[in-house]
Amino acid sequence: MSNKSSKVIILTGASRGIGLVIAHYLLSHADKHRLVVTARSEKPLKELEQQYPGQVAVLTGDASDLSLGGKAVELAEDRWQRLDGVIINHGVLDPVTRVANAKAEDWRKAFDINFFSAVALVQVALPALRDSKGAIIFTSSGAASRGFPTWGAYGAAKAAMNHLAMTLGSEEKEITSIAIRPGVVDTEMQREVREKHNGVMDEEHVKHFASLKSDGHLLKAELPGHVMAKLVLDPPRDLNGHFLDWNAGELKAYQEM
Amino acid sequence: MSNKSSKVIILTGASRGIGLVIAHYLLSHADKHRLVVTARSEKPLKELEQQYPGQVAVLTGDASDLSLGGKAVELAEDRWQRLDGVIINHGVLDPVTRVANAKAEDWRKAFDINFFSAVALVQVALPALRDSKGAIIFTSSGAASRGFPTWGAYGAAKAAMNHLAMTLGSEEKEITSIAIRPGVVDTEMQREVREKHNGVMDEEHVKHFASLKSDGHLLKAELPGHVMAKLVLDPPRDLNGHFLDWNAGELKAYQEM
Repeated sequence: MSNKSSKVIILTGASRGIGLVIAHYLLSHADKHRLVVTARSEKPLKELEQQYPGQVAVLTGDASDLSLGGKAVELAEDRWQRLDGVIINHGVLDPVTRVANAKAEDWRKAFDINFFSAVALVQVALPALRDSKGAIIFTSSGAASRGFPTWGAYGAAKAAMNHLAMTLGSEEKEITSIAIRPGVVDTEMQREVREKHNGVMDEEHVKHFASLKSDGHLLKAELPGHVMAKLVLDPPRDLNGHFLDWNAGELKAYQEM
Repeated sequence: MSNKSSKVIILTGASRGIGLVIAHYLLSHADKHRLVVTARSEKPLKELEQQYPGQVAVLTGDASDLSLGGKAVELAEDRWQRLDGVIINHGVLDPVTRVANAKAEDWRKAFDINFFSAVALVQVALPALRDSKGAIIFTSSGAASRGFPTWGAYGAAKAAMNHLAMTLGSEEKEITSIAIRPGVVDTEMQREVREKHNGVMDEEHVKHFASLKSDGHLLKAELPGHVMAKLVLDPPRDLNGHFLDWNAGELKAYQEM
């Protein structure tokens, strides 16, 4: 790859939703960026590899396996000898249940996937990201900053993730770490909210999410996805450590509106 | 115990610091409140038991054992057939190190002690607390809302704890859940900061904490401790789910200043 502007990015949760949108944006870019893509399902990752020959390295695995992040960094360095950015985008909403009905063990598993995997990946990626003065972009959630019945485990893990971005902001001045709230996006996670969790969640919230879908008010994944893709390519260093809405005023230059 | 105003409280981390101050406040109260006290060290708990006969049930154990919370609730109910409040006060600052030098596995262990233990205890305590319209008071930290170099694991777990209080605020309307920032208190944790972590932390922060001690500006544990004790006895229902400084204006009625 002779293009000097071509960057090497690790993207987790790349098989669908916001992750898949980010993958297409970066891979179809004129600079032909190169991606290590991770997800549980191999097929969509292999399709990216075929569609963008030479630009994609596939790593399948479950994010609860804390060694996956290290393997992703190794793959990027073995294949392309550099790393410019990491987008930590994978996550699960489960367990969706009230604290009263929860099991602490299930919260631990949710944190393995949604949070400790991020700590593990970041930790291994930092030396290469310092070299490239790179970026870490986190897919966070509005659930991080409010108490939403039945979403306690998810929201607490996202609050911890936002805190991790803050800590990195204070510790790693050469790297830009930003957590993004993508809004309520028309993805598989929202389908699960409507079809799988509707019996557990409060009725008002079930109705709210259902009407966002039926009224066409769910965001297209391209809106926050493209902001995140542009952020990893050209990170605003003055926002290091921040948690921001995808459509925040500070990110105007990254938005397509 | 014939005193109808005598409440039954579970207090974790009761062996020293803020926890021990809370224990003495509640046990020496005219209403002779009764406590299940937990900590790793048995001796200080046994001393409380001897000093306040009939008012103390001792449970020693490591908070990373997620079954400890259930045992505490069982002990309160077996001994006194009720539960009016829980103060989740135990915690450890370790691992104190930059994310770059951290191991995700050490973060997991820190969350077992500082966070998942709280989820486990709360989950078992909720039915009894609904019956008593009781309270859950969390010892949080200012580190929850800022990125402080080398304190990432501790701060992220406290951010998750504050989120748990928010979720409980939204799910459990009969119970009052409040997270308190106790400020920088003259306890064993601060001694560790000065004597054990001074080689790892940034020099400016080491100096800051050292000068708080030498200038006599560390808070006495009684100040936040008594606020927390009064909160568990007479919780302000309108602050359910909040994270508040011990000396916040909203808590004026609980402060001794």
